[in-house]
Amino acid sequence: MGTIIKELTKAGDARKIFQNVISPLSATEPIPLIDCPGRVLASFITSTRNVPHYRRAAMDGYAVQASDTIGASVTNPVMLGVSEDAEPGTCARVHTGSNIPDSADAVVMIEDTTPIGDMVEIRTQLHPNKHVGCIGEDMQAGELIFKVGHLLRPCDAAVLASLGIGEVEVYQKPVVAVIPTGDEVVPRTASEIPPAGKVLETNGLMVGLYVEKWGGKARYCDIVPDKPELIENAIRSNLDADMIILCGGTSVGERDHVPAVVGSLGEILVHGIGLSPGKPTALGIIGNVPVVCMPGYPVAGLVGLFAFARPALRKVANIPDIPDTIIRARMCGKINSKEGYLTYARVVLKDNIAHPLMTSGAGVLSSVAKANGFVIIPENVEGYEEGQDVDVVLIE
Amino acid sequence: MGTIIKELTKAGDARKIFQNVISPLSATEPIPLIDCPGRVLASFITSTRNVPHYRRAAMDGYAVQASDTIGASVTNPVMLGVSEDAEPGTCARVHTGSNIPDSADAVVMIEDTTPIGDMVEIRTQLHPNKHVGCIGEDMQAGELIFKVGHLLRPCDAAVLASLGIGEVEVYQKPVVAVIPTGDEVVPRTASEIPPAGKVLETNGLMVGLYVEKWGGKARYCDIVPDKPELIENAIRSNLDADMIILCGGTSVGERDHVPAVVGSLGEILVHGIGLSPGKPTALGIIGNVPVVCMPGYPVAGLVGLFAFARPALRKVANIPDIPDTIIRARMCGKINSKEGYLTYARVVLKDNIAHPLMTSGAGVLSSVAKANGFVIIPENVEGYEEGQDVDVVLIE
Repeated sequence: MGTIIKELTKAGDARKIFQNVISPLSATEPIPLIDCPGRVLASFITSTRNVPHYRRAAMDGYAVQASDTIGASVTNPVMLGVSEDAEPGTCARVHTGSNIPDSADAVVMIEDTTPIGDMVEIRTQLHPNKHVGCIGEDMQAGELIFKVGHLLRPCDAAVLASLGIGEVEVYQKPVVAVIPTGDEVVPRTASEIPPAGKVLETNGLMVGLYVEKWGGKARYCDIVPDKPELIENAIRSNLDADMIILCGGTSVGERDHVPAVVGSLGEILVHGIGLSPGKPTALGIIGNVPVVCMPGYPVAGLVGLFAFARPALRKVANIPDIPDTIIRARMCGKINSKEGYLTYARVVLKDNIAHPLMTSGAGVLSSVAKANGFVIIPENVEGYEEGQDVDVVLIE
Repeated sequence: MGTIIKELTKAGDARKIFQNVISPLSATEPIPLIDCPGRVLASFITSTRNVPHYRRAAMDGYAVQASDTIGASVTNPVMLGVSEDAEPGTCARVHTGSNIPDSADAVVMIEDTTPIGDMVEIRTQLHPNKHVGCIGEDMQAGELIFKVGHLLRPCDAAVLASLGIGEVEVYQKPVVAVIPTGDEVVPRTASEIPPAGKVLETNGLMVGLYVEKWGGKARYCDIVPDKPELIENAIRSNLDADMIILCGGTSVGERDHVPAVVGSLGEILVHGIGLSPGKPTALGIIGNVPVVCMPGYPVAGLVGLFAFARPALRKVANIPDIPDTIIRARMCGKINSKEGYLTYARVVLKDNIAHPLMTSGAGVLSSVAKANGFVIIPENVEGYEEGQDVDVVLIE
């Protein structure tokens, strides 16, 4: 049976309390470069070679000895012969990226030259190393290139590949067990409209897909009825996961057993949060496994997921904080909020105008389908007026 | 042989010219909901049922006839009997999400009740439909839920699932042929450091991984030497793709044949762009296939990729414009730019301070590894001073 929520924890405090008990995963695995984007490096990457590993022409043109070009200009060009190795008084044709002959120390751009017979006219004076990519200019052997904890991007794969690296050691993706609960919840496989009083399972699917998007591996579990012993069994059989997210059964009703069961197996850190929607969210830990108890109301669940499960999952996964995409917009209507609650108001953002959605019920999932952003209203602010400029966080 | 770039096209103009010739893919495919995030709807989604499909209790408590609660208050409670179907003078226990008996028209919250013997004390007056989720309140049968072109998110999967939808028709992912070119480029499989004058293939890998990240399917092609007929063959054998990205060979050197070959097979729309780095980028079209010719210098290639290939790929893929993540930051050093060039300066963003990177060479790939953002400087601005506030676009 549910406990009565006596006092609400502020959303920011709840997040801190929860984040503080979470330990990042230490298990690692090797992966090929082609799979690296979005993964987090678990080992330092030090260059084992110089890049470039030879003196490389940075331009198309002629490799020369810079001293042979002293005084050269458009009105007073220098004439050089052509050779393979650019010995004194001659130049060697090079292309961008070519190896520069040992005896040359500069490259004159093709635009500043004209071949005349078997000579080349040079119309500019060069200093040594002009248009020369020196050995190790990009990366030097022994240089630290990436630190542990770096979130890999496609451009980093190119950097790693240029060092001759074919695979990297990254942190394993955390396995997140997603457990939908509720006597009223039936599997999505039902092709018929379920009987009155029954609803299709949708929260688990949503949570699992966000888990995958945020860098975890979702383990989709069966629906658990509102029976404490069955909830306990479901949790126990997923304590090998790196995180558990339960959907539903977090409120104060007779059928809301989830926080109590989590508390009996471990510790409930927070139950009842100044978050709207999302007040019945509970956060706990069992052994080393963080547990998020999401309200069953889909919009409340979604807000709880964004506010708590996402940062928690990132911490478990060693993923550094990723800023939200925020668009500055003007409200074209009023949005209300309850004092004392961090309020996620759904808006439709179009051409930098934020249109508030009228249906604000926590159960109205379609409001999320229609919305593309949240305006997050602090606890001490009572909504925003029409015409006010606000930050809209895009719903990813 | 390369053509001389006579006049630079402004980056914004180049993008418009290129975008204008691109046709979105029309081919579609059905996918299960679990694969839908990041995909684009190719059919309208209309609700085939009401959600909820029954009158649902929005709270834990008792279903009542609102008229039975007239005048009820804390000081003057009403006593009701308990029944299964809440006939007049009685109430029926309901849980959040329960079906409400036909004769009831409101739900009183459990907090406003106390069971006394076999009666229930009701301490509040309700109006009809209070705490009742009406049939179709969330979505009505026949209501348009998502339009064609909607980019699906995990929360949308939940909306679709609640309608009993198991799979959706989405646009196919465009196949993007990625063709690295260059006599100096050797496969990444080489375990030894390549000989002087040779470099490992990294651009194709980078491009392919970005293509996948941005919603395309990368077709990784073999490296093509700087021979017009071989480049032509490589392009011809990929004209079944939805887009082609060639890396290297776009400049004005003797070995730069790529734009000329593209022009001979179709049309070069732009060659030479006021973009720094990235000036030798060329954009063309062959039949219906957009072709991006990226400079071989990795940083120039990356900038060309962000500036042109990403919006082009999104248009081909029917993916709506996605805003960049932009962070407002203060420059802690000066960054320079060339007038007439849209300049992508690499910075390290930390705690809202943007540190300019010293190495700005287009060939210095490690500058990208070190950078996490671009400060994009317009053509008519000559760099930014220390202390100036700037927008930093995160490098994804």
